[in-house]
Amino acid sequence: MKNTVLAIALGLTTAATAQVDAQKQQTIKEIYNTALGEQQGYQWLHYLCTEIGARPSGSEAANQAARWAMEVLLEDGADTAWLQPVEVPKWYRGEERSTVYAGGEATALPTTALGGSVPTPKEGVKAEVVEVGSFEELEQLGRAGVEGKIVFYNTYMDHSLISTFNAYGRAVNYRWAGAMRAAEYGAVATVMRSVTLLRDNLPHTGAMGYGESEVKIPSAALSWQAADLLHELLQPGSPVQLDLFLDCGVQGTAINYNVVADFKGSERPDELMLVGGHLDSWDLGQGAQDDGAGVAHAMEVPHLLRAVGYQNRRTVRVVLWANEEFGLDGAKAYAEWAKAEGVHHWVAMESDAGGDVPRGFGVGSDDERVELVRSYAPYLNPYGLWELAKGGGGADLSPLSGHDDFFIGYRPESQRYFDFHHSARDRIDAIHPRSLEMGAASMAALYYLLDQED
Amino acid sequence: MKNTVLAIALGLTTAATAQVDAQKQQTIKEIYNTALGEQQGYQWLHYLCTEIGARPSGSEAANQAARWAMEVLLEDGADTAWLQPVEVPKWYRGEERSTVYAGGEATALPTTALGGSVPTPKEGVKAEVVEVGSFEELEQLGRAGVEGKIVFYNTYMDHSLISTFNAYGRAVNYRWAGAMRAAEYGAVATVMRSVTLLRDNLPHTGAMGYGESEVKIPSAALSWQAADLLHELLQPGSPVQLDLFLDCGVQGTAINYNVVADFKGSERPDELMLVGGHLDSWDLGQGAQDDGAGVAHAMEVPHLLRAVGYQNRRTVRVVLWANEEFGLDGAKAYAEWAKAEGVHHWVAMESDAGGDVPRGFGVGSDDERVELVRSYAPYLNPYGLWELAKGGGGADLSPLSGHDDFFIGYRPESQRYFDFHHSARDRIDAIHPRSLEMGAASMAALYYLLDQED
Repeated sequence: MKNTVLAIALGLTTAATAQVDAQKQQTIKEIYNTALGEQQGYQWLHYLCTEIGARPSGSEAANQAARWAMEVLLEDGADTAWLQPVEVPKWYRGEERSTVYAGGEATALPTTALGGSVPTPKEGVKAEVVEVGSFEELEQLGRAGVEGKIVFYNTYMDHSLISTFNAYGRAVNYRWAGAMRAAEYGAVATVMRSVTLLRDNLPHTGAMGYGESEVKIPSAALSWQAADLLHELLQPGSPVQLDLFLDCGVQGTAINYNVVADFKGSERPDELMLVGGHLDSWDLGQGAQDDGAGVAHAMEVPHLLRAVGYQNRRTVRVVLWANEEFGLDGAKAYAEWAKAEGVHHWVAMESDAGGDVPRGFGVGSDDERVELVRSYAPYLNPYGLWELAKGGGGADLSPLSGHDDFFIGYRPESQRYFDFHHSARDRIDAIHPRSLEMGAASMAALYYLLDQED
Repeated sequence: MKNTVLAIALGLTTAATAQVDAQKQQTIKEIYNTALGEQQGYQWLHYLCTEIGARPSGSEAANQAARWAMEVLLEDGADTAWLQPVEVPKWYRGEERSTVYAGGEATALPTTALGGSVPTPKEGVKAEVVEVGSFEELEQLGRAGVEGKIVFYNTYMDHSLISTFNAYGRAVNYRWAGAMRAAEYGAVATVMRSVTLLRDNLPHTGAMGYGESEVKIPSAALSWQAADLLHELLQPGSPVQLDLFLDCGVQGTAINYNVVADFKGSERPDELMLVGGHLDSWDLGQGAQDDGAGVAHAMEVPHLLRAVGYQNRRTVRVVLWANEEFGLDGAKAYAEWAKAEGVHHWVAMESDAGGDVPRGFGVGSDDERVELVRSYAPYLNPYGLWELAKGGGGADLSPLSGHDDFFIGYRPESQRYFDFHHSARDRIDAIHPRSLEMGAASMAALYYLLDQED
């Protein structure tokens, strides 16, 4: 495209248009200008990803990240900041591989252990593969069709759903419960198509569970292309063998930390506006989208408010949770503490859907506050924030439900998120600086508007 | 983020909500399902980028692309397809480099000739550098400050504009007219900060002009980081020399082709619904975003309508224009032909803003038709199409204005576009398959809705 100016005249049609306050518009404009110019959140995220790297549950890197974030927040003007110890499972991943044998040929398949899987024996598990497309198909095969075999869940995210999080929510059941269910029929291991929409060759990990099962079988993800190949090899009907080796497992517990930092309000310091993301990540990649982006967003909210000269009336509390991925331990510990101490949050916002461009917010609260957020549409639409939906929050806020009653989830564009999610591709180059910054500015703008309410 | 389902309840507030037709909703859903499942447009684009590659003005690759596209469109069910010859300038780029000398050190700077620049002499141009931030600063320096020097335009896209196309529209004046203006004061060459928002190390090309100037001086772009370095080196005030070598230029003319393909309407075949993108690209990269994406979008619109079993009532005409980048020759030739033959377009839509996720459409027409498109909001909002703005079309439609009167420009998300634009980064891996497909589906959905009107 050449030098064509596309002057976007946004078609604001809500009744609230007439009530727009020029001063508020100006402050919000400055918040975005600052974010897009400084790119402070991106610089923090760059450090977190490239200098500290992956931060799996129980790792020393997770603690390094907590100490770093606390220091940065204090340097950036936090009045207080502290580390809350959290006991978490210590996850270990060593070597992992699989080889498929079919028609006299052996082919290595990109493979990764699901989080929480038991290891295979040292000699690996070698068995015939049986493919299923659902739990119903597993049930139909029964013990006769499954015993002694490796179950291959050739299951997909639904590509037709526009919200990829909805597609994820459905597909992830096979990751969580696949091993548990296959073991009931005597399977010796499971592999699954990675939970992603990108048709590439990287496997994606993520938490799985054994529930109350006594028999725990190893469980791994294959890349999309490896799953395609395995499916093709199975078509002729001749037996196909898979040799799976996983060196991994939970090695007891360790202490990680939640980071909590308060930027005191000038008028209503006891009314807390929590903003958070989770500091831990899976061990593949650098945890850039999941959830380094949310960490950067949360850290940047008070930074942006102060940078444009705004003194928050209420206290802005940044919370960076430990171990979301592998048990939600940090969020549970924080909520337990808040309940025990009688600490309430006037509002609590989470960013755990990546660093892509803004689409909107989900609001978990009574209708009155949903309508309040919707009334901000004239301020927010020009920045791409159109989806102001009822229902929202996020995993790390869920332990506060029943205790508090106003939750907000930041919703960026979701199309690319599962390309990176839980894979070696979730690195700093998965993050687009301007898009990340627009997220931080969007969250700061919403908190600015809310803080102006009486 | 773990297995949290974000059920997006879209807050549809327009008056038209009540009039939603379930059959139309279903057809539109099928259009998106098909696009996201098949990914046919992405496969076409993959071929265009990786098998044919860059398609600069006057190149044989541009003609190869035209022949390929015509064949694909015929195979895909076009009733007729033809190539319209267009005389275009033949652009040549050979070796290019620059070295800055400051404080006794020599540093190579990533450099590329602007499109249309004259070459340097074989020995290059070596001269002192003078930096300006605007044409006003150039004027203030005058001949005394500029004569015999290389002018460095350290000019920026405005990072604070949310529509990056608006920022581009302003910044690109320095690319187009920088050499012309500097030559008036006796400069021997110009270099400029690349017109991009990504702070990286690749130079971005694009068209420049000499207007009526008799003196034509060489003109090049530096990468963002090279411009930062050059700016830093100039700060102490000691003279800084730049040695610029460019082997490039316009080598006469050549014949390239517009591709025109009609998918005949069943009820109103004479009412044309034009959908297009431009087939040419700059010579760096593969022209994936600019404008391979638009080519794939345009080719996919009739494909998707037919794939969901919809027989278009009006004729859908795909036009893939030759040489947009370096003179708009294809669009001018097509419009001249249309005018001479009395061919009118009931509506004409262009995609030339890349392959990112949908944001909306710009509608260049009278208010009645703007309102018609806006009345489709309940159908389009669920797919991220919220910005249904007055004013739009695109460069390749502009020669039809005055002749026709209903123009539509597809508007994807714009944050990333200028990261790739006119640079070696504009390759197939700049394209996200789902995002590209959502664009094609959005355009097909809008044409489906319009085709239903009487």
